[in-house]
Amino acid sequence: MKQYVCMTEFKPKTADFAQRVADSFARQAALTTMGARLVSVEPGRVVVDMAHDDRFTQQHGFIHAGVTTTVLDTACGYAAFSLMPADAGVLTIELKTNLLAPAAGETFEFEGRVVKPGRTVTFCEGEAFAISKGARKRIATLSATMMTVLGRDDVKS
Amino acid sequence: MKQYVCMTEFKPKTADFAQRVADSFARQAALTTMGARLVSVEPGRVVVDMAHDDRFTQQHGFIHAGVTTTVLDTACGYAAFSLMPADAGVLTIELKTNLLAPAAGETFEFEGRVVKPGRTVTFCEGEAFAISKGARKRIATLSATMMTVLGRDDVKS
Amino acid sequence: MKQYVCMTEFKPKTADFAQRVADSFARQAALTTMGARLVSVEPGRVVVDMAHDDRFTQQHGFIHAGVTTTVLDTACGYAAFSLMPADAGVLTIELKTNLLAPAAGETFEFEGRVVKPGRTVTFCEGEAFAISKGARKRIATLSATMMTVLGRDDVKS
Amino acid sequence: MKQYVCMTEFKPKTADFAQRVADSFARQAALTTMGARLVSVEPGRVVVDMAHDDRFTQQHGFIHAGVTTTVLDTACGYAAFSLMPADAGVLTIELKTNLLAPAAGETFEFEGRVVKPGRTVTFCEGEAFAISKGARKRIATLSATMMTVLGRDDVKS
Repeated sequence: MKQYVCMTEFKPKTADFAQRVADSFARQAALTTMGARLVSVEPGRVVVDMAHDDRFTQQHGFIHAGVTTTVLDTACGYAAFSLMPADAGVLTIELKTNLLAPAAGETFEFEGRVVKPGRTVTFCEGEAFAISKGARKRIATLSATMMTVLGRDDVKS
Repeated sequence: MKQYVCMTEFKPKTADFAQRVADSFARQAALTTMGARLVSVEPGRVVVDMAHDDRFTQQHGFIHAGVTTTVLDTACGYAAFSLMPADAGVLTIELKTNLLAPAAGETFEFEGRVVKPGRTVTFCEGEAFAISKGARKRIATLSATMMTVLGRDDVKS
Repeated sequence: MKQYVCMTEFKPKTADFAQRVADSFARQAALTTMGARLVSVEPGRVVVDMAHDDRFTQQHGFIHAGVTTTVLDTACGYAAFSLMPADAGVLTIELKTNLLAPAAGETFEFEGRVVKPGRTVTFCEGEAFAISKGARKRIATLSATMMTVLGRDDVKS
Repeated sequence: MKQYVCMTEFKPKTADFAQRVADSFARQAALTTMGARLVSVEPGRVVVDMAHDDRFTQQHGFIHAGVTTTVLDTACGYAAFSLMPADAGVLTIELKTNLLAPAAGETFEFEGRVVKPGRTVTFCEGEAFAISKGARKRIATLSATMMTVLGRDDVKS
């Protein structure tokens, strides 16, 4: 996992924010099963990629909109998590996906960004791209609200 | 797959709507991979279930919110598809999930319902439930807009 | 304002929840300007109505979708507020409206319901109906997340 | 109304797109009542502004979230409409607003942009800003799906 030079406007609360994201990401069985990989972590911005996988298609052979949503949600969740204190966990409260084009490509890229961090709730936006024969096409956008969870043993990092 | 007696207010355009839904569902690799099963099809209402599967959890051990969204989206998409003409395909335009509780349970049930069918766009709502030790708890709601796609070879049934 | 007998499952935290809602509603200039009236308050459920008003139409003569959203948001916000402690204020975090039919009618009814109350965030759903020549038609649904705000002087009741 | 030099990537289908937007905007009584003014029209991008008005506040004295949504929806609807054929009308199918900060300011600016135009549905995003003592602060984002309506007498331009 490559850690980009910070270009975002947000200040992380922990020095090891990128490691914390990577550790938590590694515990997400769903993402591993789908073949998603953490590409980069900056404060408030996370990029994930995934190769096309026939096991995760819908009836027309495209990657399922729900799978696109899963990875977008994860990228946004970790974008939010990257700005949270060390003892916090993150939960998605709500998400909305707008599907712009069928998810057809050899690989896919998912970017999650914090728009507005908050002590309790953080608002994020994400974008998914399909890469096909070198061309990059935006296929979906996500808007989501993430919650900082403190003091709960079942929801940490 | 059990076909319930029709109790909804909607009239299907085809006699074999339940079979068309079942055939299309069977072609959704993502759903098969996740272990989702079609439970019932009525005109404008589809129920899907799924057992807990460690391969689809998030970092706290719950089923990933994106996976819940995937199955809810599918239930709603087929609820819409059940009312479409024989030569139509269905695509999700947008979906919003509100996550009410972590997806903790032995099995999960997903119900998709048509709220307002239309020639071009159909509005649906869905609900997901976790079943744990016999208790049934609502864990998520979905609101989604589905599109009727006609005359496209890459998007049919 | 008529106070219905409580039929919802939620327990209010204050005995005067309906009065608190009515007092706060009366301070919403936007609602007064639009001619919206509080019809009923139960714990976790609020109904508001409004007559058609040419000053609030869009270009085709229907009530503007944003005005429908305004009143639905208000009904949902007060449904959430009715379950909050005495010193809390309520703010909308996010809302989604699905517009099912043009807002054509003599009067309109807006119902807001709490789906899942929480200490910090409360999830609500709303429905708007147009009443025309005695017929009642659902024209919009809302899903919204409301936040309990404590200890802020600029956001109380 | 100032018509900016076109800087967007979209090609309008009519030469008089900006005039058609201005004419239709002028027929929106709700917007006139709220004091909203059309600031600029480019192909796929529309800016509207509005001064603070005590008649449209919520209980804490901020502009009502629904009013913000109304103007954002309008800016996005006209961004979509600017790319439609001459005989088309526009209707909002669904919209989601995320509220980032209370709408406190002397004036407000609302920008609507087309993200993905389509023959039948167009996906738009919008942003609202509060201007207070010279400072400009983003207060809300909108994501919305607009529909091109053809051949309906009750929904044109």
